[in-house]
Amino acid sequence: MFNRVAIVGLGIVGGSIGLALRNAKAAQQVTGYDLGKGVTDHARKIGAIDQAYYTLVDAVRGAELVILATPIGAMRSLLQNIASVASPGSVVTDVASTKMQVISWAEEYLPTSVSFVGGHPLAGREVSDADSANAALFQNRVYCLTPTRRTSSAALYKVTQLIEVLGARVRFLEPAEHDGQVACVSHLPFVVSAVLMNTVAESPAWGDAVLLSGRGLRDMTRLASGSPEVYRDICLTDSEALSRCLSEYIRELSTFRDQLDAHDNSVIQTFTRAQQLLEQWQATRDID
Amino acid sequence: MFNRVAIVGLGIVGGSIGLALRNAKAAQQVTGYDLGKGVTDHARKIGAIDQAYYTLVDAVRGAELVILATPIGAMRSLLQNIASVASPGSVVTDVASTKMQVISWAEEYLPTSVSFVGGHPLAGREVSDADSANAALFQNRVYCLTPTRRTSSAALYKVTQLIEVLGARVRFLEPAEHDGQVACVSHLPFVVSAVLMNTVAESPAWGDAVLLSGRGLRDMTRLASGSPEVYRDICLTDSEALSRCLSEYIRELSTFRDQLDAHDNSVIQTFTRAQQLLEQWQATRDID
Repeated sequence: MFNRVAIVGLGIVGGSIGLALRNAKAAQQVTGYDLGKGVTDHARKIGAIDQAYYTLVDAVRGAELVILATPIGAMRSLLQNIASVASPGSVVTDVASTKMQVISWAEEYLPTSVSFVGGHPLAGREVSDADSANAALFQNRVYCLTPTRRTSSAALYKVTQLIEVLGARVRFLEPAEHDGQVACVSHLPFVVSAVLMNTVAESPAWGDAVLLSGRGLRDMTRLASGSPEVYRDICLTDSEALSRCLSEYIRELSTFRDQLDAHDNSVIQTFTRAQQLLEQWQATRDID
Repeated sequence: MFNRVAIVGLGIVGGSIGLALRNAKAAQQVTGYDLGKGVTDHARKIGAIDQAYYTLVDAVRGAELVILATPIGAMRSLLQNIASVASPGSVVTDVASTKMQVISWAEEYLPTSVSFVGGHPLAGREVSDADSANAALFQNRVYCLTPTRRTSSAALYKVTQLIEVLGARVRFLEPAEHDGQVACVSHLPFVVSAVLMNTVAESPAWGDAVLLSGRGLRDMTRLASGSPEVYRDICLTDSEALSRCLSEYIRELSTFRDQLDAHDNSVIQTFTRAQQLLEQWQATRDID
């Protein structure tokens, strides 16, 4: 199906894409490059790539499809560096959690002979290591594509072929629409989790209170284990939409706090609504 | 060990205490009463109690230990109603998540010949039904006791014997200390979860964004499934401490939002701190 596919960044996402491509024999060759030489070698060893390269240029040269699977923070310079080596007619795609910034870098740096398709597979984990990679990571998951006016239909078709190999479900969105939607459902939760961890563990009573903590706090702070760099990059490249969600969240918390201070029985409405909304959501969502 | 133990409220907590007492043959008779006749009969059927009663007075009469395992909201009138029937020398204890209010009701309504010991087993679940009851629910869990100057050592000893039967670990705390500590580690998380559910599901984009939601949001909103009545009672009987935690949480969220609006790289510090605090916590906590 593909001749040569290059995967740049061989963590859980890049590694899983490689495994899926190779398992399906969907590419004649999968090349890989990661900043960490050990990571690149490991990806080769677990069969996520056919050929390890130790420079970006070598990995990308001659590839018809280049997949950028690094943190967002690395993508700007990656796009600058592959601009001169990517083959005319080739397609570059990424897997970043926010799309507007990456697309604007791609349109700034890549020559018009190279097509860019913004992508975002929804198979997030707090873990990011290659050891967690598996070919089925994207099976039945939503995989967003955010084409722009500059995206050719041939390029779009190539990336949808990749998504088919991964077993994921394509969802097309405007870049701004995508970034607005993930701000609330995906980015707000990890901010809420990290700030909760800080508030609780930096409260004066934590040293003793920790003995009274249970499963609730544990689950609510699990996302705080995620990579600070990844979270920072996501927040700073989706700041406007995330700030709006945060402001609304703070507003609702403040209302609740004011009701509490007034010993107002209507605090129950927050919990009644939440329970109902959760039930409605559970009724519609996939079982997994 | 015990002659007659009465359990009032036969949900997951009351039912589990009954099962543990009967499994250990620690009481000659375990009587039970619940507002729901079906619940009382069911508790008898699953072996959580020996004898079902359909009035509070009948269940409590002659018991040397009375365990109030109802939502906090029901406890005031329960304490009023058992005041005249509880045997002199008997001990009343409760399992409510907040202690100051219940203790003040107990000291107001119970005669001095009846001892009250405030208790709080930390084995919370969003579920509250008797079907989830099991004798091992409290095994190795912390069980707080909050004696006051009025608590006799004989009464305290009786309740620690119960806790021993449950396999839990006693922790003694001042009532105010207890309520301050659980506000942050236990009550703040469910408020955070419920308000997050509301903010996200009431955002204009939710209808579409729901398709992009993943495990993060799911875990962060799980606590929103808990009983609104139980949550309300907890909040209103721990409003001062919870309001303090909420204010600090809102303050930290607002700082983060301001940094985000300023495109300030220091947003990373929120995530770095949270990751470190979580790791420190994980290093000290029991594995389960």
